Amino acid sequence: MITALDHIAIAVPDLEASIKRFMEDFGLPFNGTEDVEAARTTTAFFPLPPTSIELVYPLRGEGPIAKYLEKKGGGMHHLCFRSDNIEEDILRLKAKGYQFLSEGPSEGAHNSKVIFIHPKSCDGVLIEINQPGDEH
Amino acid sequence: MITALDHIAIAVPDLEASIKRFMEDFGLPFNGTEDVEAARTTTAFFPLPPTSIELVYPLRGEGPIAKYLEKKGGGMHHLCFRSDNIEEDILRLKAKGYQFLSEGPSEGAHNSKVIFIHPKSCDGVLIEINQPGDEH
Repeated sequence: MITALDHIAIAVPDLEASIKRFMEDFGLPFNGTEDVEAARTTTAFFPLPPTSIELVYPLRGEGPIAKYLEKKGGGMHHLCFRSDNIEEDILRLKAKGYQFLSEGPSEGAHNSKVIFIHPKSCDGVLIEINQPGDEH
Repeated sequence: MITALDHIAIAVPDLEASIKRFMEDFGLPFNGTEDVEAARTTTAFFPLPPTSIELVYPLRGEGPIAKYLEKKGGGMHHLCFRSDNIEEDILRLKAKGYQFLSEGPSEGAHNSKVIFIHPKSCDGVLIEINQPGDEH
């Protein structure tokens, strides 16, 4: 079941400048960065419980965020719903015809399980579903 | 001061279908629609306190959302920060060089005061600042 809006992710071309922007100019709380190998991003976390804003930046200059930045320069990249049972949500949504970017979930930030729904299934919005890990 | 992520807005080409999607497929709570003359949208509200997801659809088939849909088909349109003093936030951000889409705030949904920051000031993200009305 979807239980919350987990985060929205913004792809940024200059991570340090954007961290500064959201901290200093908008006054959001900053909770550090994490390299997320599976997504090939460095992610900066701004917790606004129960949701958060995440800035995503290409790890080693490559991967899907690098391609997005090349094409668009920056922008809102995806939104993420939190699930208490990701396998069940995937099955239900597949039965309704939703297409996913992978067969099953992979490992996300903070030991979570994540999967992405294809934007064409959702009015052009890239939607992630995330089941938090035990340490979340 | 920015106090919360007020909402994220998704531009949708078929409002009824997307309301159904977020209600039935994702199981989000639905709180009705409102015609927002100033933004020329019909807006559907999915409260996820203290934030919400808003679906925006062109009122009378025209306005900025109609143009966005023509170009992009649909997608995440903007995010909105809640302010407890919008005039103060505008002055602070203008002093830091942020450009706005209007000189001062105008009336938004639910009697709020709203203003938009130009996406070029913010890595391609359209950011609204919203000070809730008394009835919020």
